[in-house]
Amino acid sequence: MSITTPQGFSAAGVPAGLKSTGAKDVALVVNAGPRFDSASVFTANRCKANPVLWSQEVVKDGTVRAVVLNSGGANCYTGPEGFQTTHAVAEKVAEHVGIAAGDVVVCSTGLIGLVNDREQVLAGVDAAYAALSGEGGNDAAEAIMTTDSVSKQVVVEGAGWSIGGMAKGAGMLAPQLATMLVVITTDAVVPADELDVALRAATRVSFDRLDSDGCMSTNDTVTVMASGASSITPSPDDFTEALTQVCTDLAMQLLKDAEGADHEIAITTLNAATEDEAVEVGRSVARSNLFKAAIFGQDPNWGRVLASVGTTQATFDPADLDVAMNGVWVCRESTPHADPETVDLSAREVSVTIDLKSGTERATVWTNDLTHAYVHENSAYSS
Amino acid sequence: MSITTPQGFSAAGVPAGLKSTGAKDVALVVNAGPRFDSASVFTANRCKANPVLWSQEVVKDGTVRAVVLNSGGANCYTGPEGFQTTHAVAEKVAEHVGIAAGDVVVCSTGLIGLVNDREQVLAGVDAAYAALSGEGGNDAAEAIMTTDSVSKQVVVEGAGWSIGGMAKGAGMLAPQLATMLVVITTDAVVPADELDVALRAATRVSFDRLDSDGCMSTNDTVTVMASGASSITPSPDDFTEALTQVCTDLAMQLLKDAEGADHEIAITTLNAATEDEAVEVGRSVARSNLFKAAIFGQDPNWGRVLASVGTTQATFDPADLDVAMNGVWVCRESTPHADPETVDLSAREVSVTIDLKSGTERATVWTNDLTHAYVHENSAYSS
Repeated sequence: MSITTPQGFSAAGVPAGLKSTGAKDVALVVNAGPRFDSASVFTANRCKANPVLWSQEVVKDGTVRAVVLNSGGANCYTGPEGFQTTHAVAEKVAEHVGIAAGDVVVCSTGLIGLVNDREQVLAGVDAAYAALSGEGGNDAAEAIMTTDSVSKQVVVEGAGWSIGGMAKGAGMLAPQLATMLVVITTDAVVPADELDVALRAATRVSFDRLDSDGCMSTNDTVTVMASGASSITPSPDDFTEALTQVCTDLAMQLLKDAEGADHEIAITTLNAATEDEAVEVGRSVARSNLFKAAIFGQDPNWGRVLASVGTTQATFDPADLDVAMNGVWVCRESTPHADPETVDLSAREVSVTIDLKSGTERATVWTNDLTHAYVHENSAYSS
Repeated sequence: MSITTPQGFSAAGVPAGLKSTGAKDVALVVNAGPRFDSASVFTANRCKANPVLWSQEVVKDGTVRAVVLNSGGANCYTGPEGFQTTHAVAEKVAEHVGIAAGDVVVCSTGLIGLVNDREQVLAGVDAAYAALSGEGGNDAAEAIMTTDSVSKQVVVEGAGWSIGGMAKGAGMLAPQLATMLVVITTDAVVPADELDVALRAATRVSFDRLDSDGCMSTNDTVTVMASGASSITPSPDDFTEALTQVCTDLAMQLLKDAEGADHEIAITTLNAATEDEAVEVGRSVARSNLFKAAIFGQDPNWGRVLASVGTTQATFDPADLDVAMNGVWVCRESTPHADPETVDLSAREVSVTIDLKSGTERATVWTNDLTHAYVHENSAYSS
């Protein structure tokens, strides 16, 4: 049940010494075809890491034959030397597999500003190639972990075809891509242009609506490769639905493993004029440190929800907003309603519902609470 | 050295039982003239508290003769009943002073969604009126405190005229007005329209650039009243400069008293194409929980600074950014430069400098670090 479940893919994850713990830190995923369709989305951050700068060029022609990933260093803000390391890694993979370097996506994750030893990374690529296997998906998923406490994997089965996915990312989740690396494989026959449409539709309602701490990473990459090895061409709707299921499942795994969080919070905005406005409202609440700290304290502080809604440009009447927490309508028409004492916020899963009464659209944005552990882990990350 | 230092003003601060501690919680400031020019700015939050809804109408004609303030309840999201309380408070002040209710600004602060007992507040107004005095500034400044650990006051002297100010606010500071109430008095002769221009110029570079935790309040109000009692008309430049000094001093007092902060952080963006872009860049860094947690951990994590800069639309080359922390240029041309180990972040005051190399404009935005104490205080506020 991994990225090597779909036919046509082999993978590996090996320790190359980039992580001081000696854990696996280089992963390789190779598509043996017969087709090499691909699609990718990258961070919207303008300060992009070297692997993103490289990979953005690689994916332009819709063909990707391998993805190589390392943890233990983000290769970000490392200048030309760092870019050359990325390039050398792609060349090394290409040489082993017998393909062009221009068909190799490179992903890195770890501390920013750290230049990994090039020879060490390249030796890791050699070892990963030697270890490639049709059962290597788990190893690859482990090799990309950083502060993740568990590896994230999923498989969704179609009629004679399947999609596998792996992801890393914990903390630093934000809109328009969390700090995360995601590799998705499928043996369905899906031309690159259709794959691109499906991937954008799937990430729009999954990874893009995850906002753990409002920070947007420099390295985020989601790449999907389609081998066509099943010889089956699913309908675009069926494929998009399955891909959305894969992305949503991985997004929820990321959310549950966010650094130092005590609660997973689903913020649903109802009856918005447009879906974008529903997302804007949800995101504004997800970004409020006051709201997030209140949930940590199990305090159903709906005033902080309304104060966040008020910062948006969405369509609503400020005097006619309803807010529920875990299904209890603590606020109706922007005034106190049910007794907040009746809201039990002790469970990890918390739902907040905001009724804008201004249309028929809705959207859910996910975030975590703001905890002592979050502050602790993120104040000590690089030391 | 308070708001009663300028001639023509009396003030009082009394306990009315709104605060469970029995501390002072109702304040009154009255302008005896001969002039009653005024200017105000309010929160940009669309979900405004009842006192803001009232006061926005009051200030439209440029005449304000009294400001009445209470702590112990924000009177926000309390519906028509809450608005009627605000109205009744203004009427009560007007009756005592012998003026129109439409010339009375009302401010409230405290918990959202809480309806104060109307009779209790009105009794507080009676007591405050009875206690009005030319030496009442300190009492008024104390009566508006909520989680503030100290009262905030300042006086700036002109040539024969002066400006006094008081502020409350700690934590929840955000752009376009922090959660704060500010009353400023002056005995200079300044027509209302000039006062408005001066106040907007002063708040733009002071309160508006304070961003403690990115949350924008529902009650923020800054009101300035000019009595003209000195009979002196300063030049607009001199007056604006003094008013800016008052606002900046109060803003720094608010910053230093932010809930649970260990550091005051000044983020200065240099060589921006426009001042707005410099502010946008500074604000994006001030909003990054990852950056703020790093400063708490005394970690000069410049990668998190660049990652925040990259989320903006400002003009810059992502490969050519310089970052200094406490004067040490830890990053040049978007790559590591001076050893971060040489940056000492143990003192409360921290400076971060970002050189965009794209123009000649600059701006400083202030924020605090993200600490365990912040999470603690804000997870337990209403319980």
